[in-house]
Amino acid sequence: MKYPNGKSFTPNSFQSGKPVSYGNRGMDLEQKINLTNTYYLEQDKAVIYKKPTPIKISEVDYKSKGKIITKAFFECPSTTDYNGIYKGKYIDFEAKETTSKTSFPLHNIHEHQIEHMMKICAHGGICFLIVQFTTLDKIFLLPAEQLKKFLTLEKRSSIPLSFFTEFAHPILEGYHPRLDYLKIVDKIYGGDNDE
Amino acid sequence: MKYPNGKSFTPNSFQSGKPVSYGNRGMDLEQKINLTNTYYLEQDKAVIYKKPTPIKISEVDYKSKGKIITKAFFECPSTTDYNGIYKGKYIDFEAKETTSKTSFPLHNIHEHQIEHMMKICAHGGICFLIVQFTTLDKIFLLPAEQLKKFLTLEKRSSIPLSFFTEFAHPILEGYHPRLDYLKIVDKIYGGDNDE
Repeated sequence: MKYPNGKSFTPNSFQSGKPVSYGNRGMDLEQKINLTNTYYLEQDKAVIYKKPTPIKISEVDYKSKGKIITKAFFECPSTTDYNGIYKGKYIDFEAKETTSKTSFPLHNIHEHQIEHMMKICAHGGICFLIVQFTTLDKIFLLPAEQLKKFLTLEKRSSIPLSFFTEFAHPILEGYHPRLDYLKIVDKIYGGDNDE
Repeated sequence: MKYPNGKSFTPNSFQSGKPVSYGNRGMDLEQKINLTNTYYLEQDKAVIYKKPTPIKISEVDYKSKGKIITKAFFECPSTTDYNGIYKGKYIDFEAKETTSKTSFPLHNIHEHQIEHMMKICAHGGICFLIVQFTTLDKIFLLPAEQLKKFLTLEKRSSIPLSFFTEFAHPILEGYHPRLDYLKIVDKIYGGDNDE
Protein backbone atom coordinates (compact mmCIF):
# COMPACT_ATOMS: atom_id res chain seq x y z
CA MET A 1 0.00 0.00 0.00
CA LYS A 2 1.01 3.63 -0.45
CA TYR A 3 1.66 6.45 2.00
CA PRO A 4 0.62 10.11 1.59
CA ASN A 5 3.92 10.78 -0.14
CA GLY A 6 3.03 8.06 -2.63
CA LYS A 7 5.95 5.90 -1.55
CA SER A 8 5.46 2.26 -0.69
CA PHE A 9 6.39 1.14 2.81
CA THR A 10 10.09 0.38 3.19
CA PRO A 11 11.26 -0.58 6.67
CA ASN A 12 14.66 1.07 6.17
CA SER A 13 13.11 4.45 5.60
CA PHE A 14 11.27 4.10 8.90
CA GLN A 15 14.26 2.78 10.80
CA SER A 16 16.78 5.33 9.59
CA GLY A 17 14.27 8.03 10.34
CA LYS A 18 15.19 9.90 7.17
CA PRO A 19 13.45 9.45 3.82
CA VAL A 20 14.96 6.94 1.42
CA SER A 21 16.84 8.62 -1.42
CA TYR A 22 16.00 7.31 -4.86
CA GLY A 23 18.48 6.61 -7.62
CA ASN A 24 17.86 8.14 -11.02
CA ARG A 25 15.95 5.01 -11.94
CA GLY A 26 13.22 5.82 -9.44
CA MET A 27 13.68 2.65 -7.45
CA ASP A 28 15.35 2.27 -4.09
CA LEU A 29 18.04 -0.31 -3.38
CA GLU A 30 15.71 -2.62 -1.48
CA GLN A 31 13.26 -2.76 -4.39
CA LYS A 32 16.12 -3.52 -6.83
CA ILE A 33 17.40 -6.35 -4.63
CA ASN A 34 13.92 -7.79 -4.09
CA LEU A 35 13.33 -7.83 -7.87
CA THR A 36 16.69 -9.52 -8.33
CA ASN A 37 15.96 -12.17 -5.68
CA THR A 38 12.60 -12.90 -7.31
CA TYR A 39 14.44 -13.33 -10.62
CA TYR A 40 16.99 -15.69 -9.01
CA LEU A 41 14.12 -17.68 -7.47
CA GLU A 42 12.23 -17.93 -10.77
CA GLN A 43 15.43 -18.97 -12.56
CA ASP A 44 16.09 -21.48 -9.75
CA LYS A 45 19.55 -19.95 -9.38
CA ALA A 46 19.35 -19.20 -5.66
CA VAL A 47 16.83 -19.01 -2.81
CA ILE A 48 17.39 -15.67 -1.10
CA TYR A 49 14.79 -13.67 0.82
CA LYS A 50 14.60 -10.42 2.74
CA LYS A 51 13.70 -11.06 6.36
CA PRO A 52 10.55 -9.43 7.69
CA THR A 53 11.10 -6.24 9.67
CA PRO A 54 11.47 -7.15 13.36
CA ILE A 55 8.50 -5.73 15.23
CA LYS A 56 7.49 -5.87 18.88
CA ILE A 57 3.76 -6.49 19.05
CA SER A 58 2.12 -4.80 22.00
CA GLU A 59 -1.63 -4.91 21.37
CA VAL A 60 -3.77 -7.19 19.19
CA ASP A 61 -7.48 -6.92 18.48
CA TYR A 62 -8.73 -10.52 18.62
CA LYS A 63 -12.38 -9.63 18.01
CA SER A 64 -11.88 -8.33 14.49
CA LYS A 65 -11.47 -10.74 11.58
CA GLY A 66 -7.88 -11.71 10.84
CA LYS A 67 -6.57 -10.41 14.18
CA ILE A 68 -5.51 -6.80 13.75
CA ILE A 69 -2.36 -5.55 15.45
CA THR A 70 -3.33 -2.21 17.00
CA LYS A 71 -0.01 -1.33 18.63
CA ALA A 72 3.51 -2.39 17.70
CA PHE A 73 7.03 -0.96 17.61
CA PHE A 74 9.95 -1.31 15.23
CA GLU A 75 12.75 -3.32 16.80
CA CYS A 76 16.45 -3.04 16.15
CA PRO A 77 17.47 -5.92 13.84
CA SER A 78 20.09 -8.27 15.32
CA THR A 79 21.01 -9.82 11.98
CA THR A 80 21.30 -8.66 8.38
CA ASP A 81 18.27 -8.12 6.13
CA TYR A 82 18.92 -10.80 3.51
CA ASN A 83 19.94 -14.43 3.68
CA GLY A 84 19.51 -17.67 1.82
CA ILE A 85 21.27 -20.37 -0.15
CA TYR A 86 23.38 -20.22 -3.30
CA LYS A 87 25.18 -23.26 -4.72
CA GLY A 88 24.65 -25.06 -1.43
CA LYS A 89 26.35 -22.28 0.53
CA TYR A 90 24.86 -19.99 3.12
CA ILE A 91 24.71 -16.41 1.83
CA ASP A 92 24.02 -13.40 4.04
CA PHE A 93 24.12 -9.68 3.36
CA GLU A 94 22.97 -6.23 4.33
CA ALA A 95 22.00 -3.48 1.87
CA LYS A 96 22.36 0.22 2.60
CA GLU A 97 22.00 3.51 0.75
CA THR A 98 23.81 6.76 1.36
CA THR A 99 23.35 10.20 -0.20
CA SER A 100 26.96 11.08 0.66
CA LYS A 101 29.27 11.58 -2.32
CA THR A 102 32.44 10.91 -0.39
CA SER A 103 31.91 8.13 2.17
CA PHE A 104 29.58 5.57 3.74
CA PRO A 105 28.73 6.48 7.36
CA LEU A 106 29.11 3.39 9.55
CA HIS A 107 26.25 4.46 11.86
CA ASN A 108 24.06 3.07 9.05
CA ILE A 109 24.89 -0.42 10.30
CA HIS A 110 24.10 -1.52 13.85
CA GLU A 111 27.03 -2.89 15.84
CA HIS A 112 25.39 -6.28 16.35
CA GLN A 113 24.77 -6.49 12.61
CA ILE A 114 28.52 -6.14 12.09
CA GLU A 115 29.13 -8.75 14.82
CA HIS A 116 26.68 -11.02 13.00
CA MET A 117 28.52 -10.54 9.68
CA MET A 118 31.83 -11.42 11.33
CA LYS A 119 30.28 -14.58 12.80
CA ILE A 120 28.98 -15.61 9.37
CA CYS A 121 32.49 -15.23 7.91
CA ALA A 122 33.96 -17.29 10.75
CA HIS A 123 31.41 -20.04 10.03
CA GLY A 124 32.33 -20.18 6.35
CA GLY A 125 29.33 -18.33 4.97
CA ILE A 126 29.34 -15.87 2.10
CA CYS A 127 28.77 -12.46 3.66
CA PHE A 128 28.90 -8.94 2.29
CA LEU A 129 27.48 -5.46 2.25
CA ILE A 130 25.75 -3.88 -0.76
CA VAL A 131 26.13 -0.11 -0.61
CA GLN A 132 24.46 2.32 -2.99
CA PHE A 133 25.89 5.81 -3.27
CA THR A 134 22.59 7.19 -4.49
CA THR A 135 23.80 10.64 -5.51
CA LEU A 136 26.72 9.13 -7.45
CA ASP A 137 24.50 6.35 -8.83
CA LYS A 138 27.15 3.77 -7.87
CA ILE A 139 26.50 0.43 -6.21
CA PHE A 140 29.24 -1.67 -4.60
CA LEU A 141 29.51 -5.13 -3.11
CA LEU A 142 31.88 -5.00 -0.14
CA PRO A 143 32.91 -8.45 1.14
CA ALA A 144 32.60 -8.75 4.93
CA GLU A 145 36.30 -9.65 5.03
CA GLN A 146 37.13 -6.21 3.62
CA LEU A 147 34.73 -4.54 6.04
CA LYS A 148 36.50 -6.37 8.85
CA LYS A 149 39.87 -5.16 7.56
CA PHE A 150 38.64 -1.57 7.52
CA LEU A 151 37.21 -1.80 11.04
CA THR A 152 40.45 -3.32 12.33
CA LEU A 153 42.81 -0.84 10.71
CA GLU A 154 40.74 2.34 10.76
CA LYS A 155 39.20 4.30 13.56
CA ARG A 156 37.07 6.39 11.19
CA SER A 157 33.30 6.47 11.56
CA SER A 158 32.73 6.27 7.81
CA ILE A 159 34.23 4.27 4.94
CA PRO A 160 35.62 6.60 2.26
CA LEU A 161 34.53 6.07 -1.36
CA SER A 162 38.19 5.40 -2.21
CA PHE A 163 38.07 2.27 -0.01
CA PHE A 164 35.09 1.03 -2.03
CA THR A 165 36.76 1.73 -5.38
CA GLU A 166 39.83 -0.15 -4.17
CA PHE A 167 38.44 -3.08 -2.15
CA ALA A 168 34.76 -3.41 -3.14
CA HIS A 169 33.26 -4.59 -6.42
CA PRO A 170 30.98 -2.39 -8.52
CA ILE A 171 27.58 -3.90 -9.36
CA LEU A 172 26.22 -2.67 -12.67
CA GLU A 173 22.46 -2.32 -13.02
CA GLY A 174 20.66 -4.34 -15.65
CA TYR A 175 17.08 -5.38 -16.26
CA HIS A 176 16.95 -9.16 -15.82
CA PRO A 177 18.30 -9.40 -13.23
CA ARG A 178 18.18 -5.83 -12.04
CA LEU A 179 21.26 -6.12 -9.83
CA ASP A 180 23.23 -9.26 -10.65
CA TYR A 181 25.20 -9.43 -7.40
CA LEU A 182 25.66 -13.22 -7.66
CA LYS A 183 27.89 -12.63 -10.66
CA ILE A 184 30.22 -10.76 -8.29
CA VAL A 185 29.81 -13.50 -5.67
CA ASP A 186 30.97 -16.04 -8.28
CA LYS A 187 33.97 -13.85 -9.06
CA ILE A 188 34.98 -13.45 -5.41
CA TYR A 189 34.04 -16.81 -3.88
CA GLY A 190 33.91 -18.84 -7.06
CA GLY A 191 36.87 -21.03 -6.19
CA ASP A 192 35.49 -22.74 -3.11
CA ASN A 193 31.89 -22.14 -4.08
CA ASP A 194 31.49 -24.12 -7.29
CA GLU A 195 30.21 -27.43 -6.04
CA MET B 1 5.30 -8.73 27.71
CA LYS B 2 2.26 -10.71 28.82
CA TYR B 3 -1.26 -10.98 27.58
CA PRO B 4 -4.45 -11.17 29.68
CA ASN B 5 -4.10 -14.94 29.75
CA GLY B 6 -0.61 -14.46 31.19
CA LYS B 7 1.04 -16.03 28.15
CA SER B 8 3.86 -14.26 26.34
CA PHE B 9 3.34 -13.39 22.69
CA THR B 10 4.08 -16.23 20.32
CA PRO B 11 3.35 -15.61 16.64
CA ASN B 12 2.30 -19.21 16.11
CA SER B 13 -0.48 -18.96 18.66
CA PHE B 14 -1.85 -15.98 16.78
CA GLN B 15 -1.42 -17.54 13.36
CA SER B 16 -2.92 -20.89 14.20
CA GLY B 17 -5.81 -19.14 15.88
CA LYS B 18 -5.85 -21.71 18.68
CA PRO B 19 -3.86 -21.38 21.90
CA VAL B 20 -0.42 -22.97 21.96
CA SER B 21 -0.41 -26.25 23.86
CA TYR B 22 2.38 -26.54 26.41
CA GLY B 23 4.43 -29.63 27.01
CA ASN B 24 4.62 -30.88 30.55
CA ARG B 25 7.73 -28.76 30.97
CA GLY B 26 5.68 -25.57 30.64
CA MET B 27 7.54 -24.31 27.59
CA ASP B 28 6.32 -24.33 24.02
CA LEU B 29 8.39 -25.67 21.12
CA GLU B 30 9.35 -22.24 19.84
CA GLN B 31 10.74 -21.23 23.24
CA LYS B 32 12.75 -24.47 23.45
CA ILE B 33 14.23 -23.91 19.98
CA ASN B 34 15.03 -20.26 20.67
CA LEU B 35 16.86 -21.24 23.88
CA THR B 36 18.75 -23.89 21.92
CA ASN B 37 19.72 -21.45 19.15
CA THR B 38 20.96 -18.96 21.75
CA TYR B 39 23.06 -21.75 23.26
CA TYR B 40 24.49 -22.69 19.83
CA LEU B 41 25.29 -19.01 19.23
CA GLU B 42 27.00 -18.62 22.61
CA GLN B 43 28.96 -21.83 22.02
CA ASP B 44 29.81 -20.57 18.52
CA LYS B 45 28.51 -23.87 17.14
CA ALA B 46 26.02 -22.40 14.67
CA VAL B 47 24.35 -19.12 13.75
CA ILE B 48 20.63 -19.85 13.50
CA TYR B 49 17.79 -17.39 14.08
CA LYS B 50 14.03 -17.39 13.98
CA LYS B 51 12.77 -14.98 11.35
CA PRO B 52 10.51 -12.16 12.52
CA THR B 53 6.79 -12.76 11.98
CA PRO B 54 5.83 -11.35 8.59
CA ILE B 55 3.50 -8.41 9.14
CA LYS B 56 1.82 -6.04 6.72
CA ILE B 57 2.03 -2.55 8.16
CA SER B 58 -0.96 -0.40 7.34
CA GLU B 59 -0.78 2.65 9.61
CA VAL B 60 2.14 4.29 11.43
CA ASP B 61 2.02 7.16 13.89
CA TYR B 62 5.04 9.29 12.94
CA LYS B 63 4.38 11.98 15.53
CA SER B 64 4.96 9.79 18.56
CA LYS B 65 8.49 8.91 19.64
CA GLY B 66 9.86 5.72 18.14
CA LYS B 67 7.23 5.61 15.40
CA ILE B 68 4.32 3.51 16.66
CA ILE B 69 2.59 1.08 14.31
CA THR B 70 -1.12 1.62 14.91
CA LYS B 71 -2.49 -0.86 12.38
CA ALA B 72 -0.91 -4.01 10.97
CA PHE B 73 -1.89 -7.50 9.92
CA PHE B 74 -0.27 -10.91 10.22
CA GLU B 75 0.89 -12.17 6.82
CA CYS B 76 1.18 -15.72 5.63
CA PRO B 77 4.88 -16.73 5.78
CA SER B 78 6.37 -17.74 2.41
CA THR B 79 9.40 -19.43 3.91
CA THR B 80 10.15 -21.45 7.06
CA ASP B 81 10.60 -19.86 10.49
CA TYR B 82 14.23 -20.72 11.12
CA ASN B 83 17.39 -20.52 9.06
CA GLY B 84 21.09 -19.96 9.40
CA ILE B 85 24.51 -21.53 8.99
CA TYR B 86 26.01 -24.68 10.47
CA LYS B 87 29.46 -25.97 9.47
CA GLY B 88 29.41 -23.66 6.46
CA LYS B 89 26.15 -25.14 5.22
CA TYR B 90 22.78 -23.47 4.86
CA ILE B 91 20.30 -24.86 7.38
CA ASP B 92 16.56 -24.22 7.20
CA PHE B 93 13.64 -25.63 9.16
CA GLU B 94 10.10 -25.21 10.37
CA ALA B 95 8.84 -26.12 13.85
CA LYS B 96 5.28 -27.18 14.61
CA GLU B 97 3.30 -28.53 17.53
CA THR B 98 0.26 -30.77 17.50
CA THR B 99 -1.99 -31.96 20.31
CA SER B 100 -2.98 -35.01 18.25
CA LYS B 101 -1.83 -38.35 19.63
CA THR B 102 -1.99 -40.16 16.32
CA SER B 103 -0.85 -37.90 13.47
CA PHE B 104 0.48 -34.51 12.35
CA PRO B 105 -2.13 -32.57 10.31
CA LEU B 106 -0.48 -31.17 7.19
CA HIS B 107 -2.70 -28.06 7.22
CA ASN B 108 -0.25 -26.88 9.90
CA ILE B 109 2.24 -26.14 7.12
CA HIS B 110 1.41 -23.72 4.31
CA GLU B 111 1.82 -25.08 0.79
CA HIS B 112 4.43 -22.47 -0.17
CA GLN B 113 6.39 -23.39 2.95
CA ILE B 114 6.57 -26.95 1.67
CA GLU B 115 7.55 -25.68 -1.81
CA HIS B 116 10.26 -23.62 -0.11
CA MET B 117 11.57 -26.69 1.76
CA MET B 118 11.74 -28.66 -1.48
CA LYS B 119 13.70 -25.84 -3.13
CA ILE B 120 16.18 -25.80 -0.24
CA CYS B 121 16.75 -29.54 -0.66
CA ALA B 122 17.26 -29.10 -4.41
CA HIS B 123 19.86 -26.40 -3.72
CA GLY B 124 21.82 -28.62 -1.36
CA GLY B 125 20.70 -27.09 1.92
CA ILE B 126 19.96 -28.94 5.12
CA CYS B 127 16.21 -28.78 5.57
CA PHE B 128 13.81 -30.42 7.98
CA LEU B 129 10.69 -30.18 10.10
CA ILE B 130 10.69 -30.32 13.90
CA VAL B 131 7.35 -31.65 15.14
CA GLN B 132 6.28 -31.83 18.77
CA PHE B 133 3.47 -34.18 19.69
CA THR B 134 2.66 -32.16 22.78
CA THR B 135 0.23 -34.59 24.38
CA LEU B 136 2.64 -37.50 23.87
CA ASP B 137 5.61 -35.35 24.89
CA LYS B 138 7.54 -36.55 21.82
CA ILE B 139 9.63 -34.38 19.51
CA PHE B 140 10.82 -35.53 16.08
CA LEU B 141 13.14 -34.18 13.40
CA LEU B 142 11.71 -35.11 10.00
CA PRO B 143 14.16 -34.53 7.11
CA ALA B 144 12.56 -32.65 4.20
CA GLU B 145 13.50 -35.59 1.96
CA GLN B 146 11.23 -37.84 4.03
CA LEU B 147 8.47 -35.25 3.99
CA LYS B 148 8.79 -35.16 0.22
CA LYS B 149 8.56 -38.96 0.07
CA PHE B 150 5.37 -38.90 2.15
CA LEU B 151 3.79 -36.18 0.01
CA THR B 152 4.68 -38.06 -3.17
CA LEU B 153 3.42 -41.45 -2.05
CA GLU B 154 0.51 -40.52 0.19
CA LYS B 155 -2.66 -38.60 -0.47
CA ARG B 156 -3.46 -38.31 3.25
CA SER B 157 -3.89 -34.90 4.86
CA SER B 158 -1.93 -35.84 7.95
CA ILE B 159 1.29 -37.73 8.64
CA PRO B 160 0.65 -40.65 11.00
CA LEU B 161 2.80 -41.01 14.11
CA SER B 162 4.02 -44.36 12.73
CA PHE B 163 5.67 -42.50 9.81
CA PHE B 164 7.56 -40.37 12.32
CA THR B 165 8.67 -43.34 14.40
CA GLU B 166 9.91 -45.03 11.21
CA PHE B 167 11.40 -42.17 9.14
CA ALA B 168 11.96 -39.28 11.56
CA HIS B 169 14.50 -38.96 14.36
CA PRO B 170 13.46 -38.41 17.98
CA ILE B 171 14.99 -35.35 19.69
CA LEU B 172 15.44 -35.84 23.41
CA GLU B 173 15.08 -32.82 25.66
CA GLY B 174 18.01 -31.73 27.77
CA TYR B 175 19.03 -28.57 29.56
CA HIS B 176 22.10 -27.22 27.76
CA PRO B 177 21.12 -27.28 24.98
CA ARG B 178 17.42 -27.71 25.55
CA LEU B 179 16.78 -29.43 22.22
CA ASP B 180 20.04 -30.59 20.64
CA TYR B 181 18.73 -30.95 17.08
CA LEU B 182 22.18 -30.37 15.54
CA LYS B 183 23.26 -33.71 17.03
CA ILE B 184 20.60 -35.31 14.81
CA VAL B 185 21.70 -33.13 11.86
CA ASP B 186 25.25 -34.46 12.30
CA LYS B 187 23.90 -38.00 12.33
CA ILE B 188 21.83 -37.55 9.17
CA TYR B 189 23.94 -35.16 7.09
CA GLY B 190 27.27 -35.75 8.84
CA GLY B 191 29.00 -37.30 5.83
CA ASP B 192 28.86 -34.39 3.42
CA ASN B 193 28.60 -31.83 6.18
CA ASP B 194 31.93 -32.15 8.01
CA GLU B 195 34.11 -29.59 6.30
